[in-house]
Amino acid sequence: MPLQFIRSSLFASPKNLLRTLFLVTKLRSLAMGSYTASSQSSKLFFRQLFEKESSTYTYLLADVSHPDKPALLIDPVDKTVDRDLSLVKELGLKLIYALNTHVHADHITGTGLIKTKSPGVKSIISKASGSKADILVEPGDKVSFGDLFLEVRATPGHTSGCVTYVTGDGPDQPQPRMVFTGDALLIRGCGRTDFQIFTLPKDTLIYPAHDYKGFSVSTVEEEMLYNPRLTKNQETFKGIMENLNLAYPKMMGIAVPANMVCGLQDTTS
Amino acid sequence: MPLQFIRSSLFASPKNLLRTLFLVTKLRSLAMGSYTASSQSSKLFFRQLFEKESSTYTYLLADVSHPDKPALLIDPVDKTVDRDLSLVKELGLKLIYALNTHVHADHITGTGLIKTKSPGVKSIISKASGSKADILVEPGDKVSFGDLFLEVRATPGHTSGCVTYVTGDGPDQPQPRMVFTGDALLIRGCGRTDFQIFTLPKDTLIYPAHDYKGFSVSTVEEEMLYNPRLTKNQETFKGIMENLNLAYPKMMGIAVPANMVCGLQDTTS
Repeated sequence: MPLQFIRSSLFASPKNLLRTLFLVTKLRSLAMGSYTASSQSSKLFFRQLFEKESSTYTYLLADVSHPDKPALLIDPVDKTVDRDLSLVKELGLKLIYALNTHVHADHITGTGLIKTKSPGVKSIISKASGSKADILVEPGDKVSFGDLFLEVRATPGHTSGCVTYVTGDGPDQPQPRMVFTGDALLIRGCGRTDFQIFTLPKDTLIYPAHDYKGFSVSTVEEEMLYNPRLTKNQETFKGIMENLNLAYPKMMGIAVPANMVCGLQDTTS
Repeated sequence: MPLQFIRSSLFASPKNLLRTLFLVTKLRSLAMGSYTASSQSSKLFFRQLFEKESSTYTYLLADVSHPDKPALLIDPVDKTVDRDLSLVKELGLKLIYALNTHVHADHITGTGLIKTKSPGVKSIISKASGSKADILVEPGDKVSFGDLFLEVRATPGHTSGCVTYVTGDGPDQPQPRMVFTGDALLIRGCGRTDFQIFTLPKDTLIYPAHDYKGFSVSTVEEEMLYNPRLTKNQETFKGIMENLNLAYPKMMGIAVPANMVCGLQDTTS
């Protein structure tokens, strides 16, 4: 199935949107009570990394309580692969997975290059993306690294194969939970989500794939209250999204074909 | 006293450098054991914010266990003041201080603009900077917000008035400690520090004023092991620093005079 960028019709389910708006209304009456410095876990090592040209965030996670210190990278960018692998090495981590939230159109994923430079690493993307990777995940799947894991949730809209990775729920897992939303939800800016994300606990820390304003993290509650798109009614939201007049993504013609094979095309030519 | 940018002679004390190099050698034999997901505190709210043009980090800290939710901003940038004040408002925080680590040469501080838009806020800079501000701090001073506080440490070198702000040491304060180094120490890149920073516990989280490679945080131990400048011997380090051939800072002529009066010059013209 070809990749579909759903730009003009962003509603997978108006029912879901209405449910979300109801929740937002309900939350507006609450005091902003869910502050946190950060997620807490004695096992998790976490770093947020930035690629300036495409304003992309790459996330490094590892279970440092495990003897192997198994690690994964979410949404690595080809241009910053050397930085990322060098950091992994310096920290004594063992990179086992390189994950994408979706087929990016604005940069080439680093997964192909990582596999070339670090052959043991497996690439991961959603089955629904229609792309190639070592492991194709489906909603409900778990991606384990040591005693920690990420859950896969389907969040189509920006692309039909977009998934969101959520840290596990349990006594050993990070608290509050952390959610890596890709382009489905951006801080105060919204890509498109089918609102799976807003069913998570309101103190869940949101880590998107991009930020163009310099924010680094948000929470589910903050986005439900202050996201300028998702707090509008359905008609207004539709109007906003249909009138964004976005330029054609600069890297679309280069990035999408390469990312459909997890960035490998770029390294073998 | 005029502001001095000490660019050619970066050693305040070779003795300190030697002590540091000794520590680095000692540390090399240790396994990298001090991983952490982040600093932990039930009181601290923390956000890292980025200004892309100058690659500057601004840090928002607040004591959210206090009824007033008193907050402070470290190294705000004039161009992102609206973003920062909007976030403070959305989160229900009460901004009381806007701090600078030093007189910046690459951007205009946001403190002047913040004071205009939010008159209760007090600006803070070191007395040694020779600049104007509501509060001039000296090494050993504490900047309190609710039950939390920052300690002021002198870290001259990049400028003679550079200070580093360190979160407090105590049961209610964030663990591990967090250190806001300004331009004194950059992740894997080094500005210049008089090595006060390396006397902190090795798991201390380092938050610099800039990063040009997309890193967001590091630790004292990591920088002692992997900082490409500070791990060299004194002669090599001197050679590196004397041969950087840095371009004259683009904003120097505009930013320094404005920042000497905490950015107010810009708002009253």
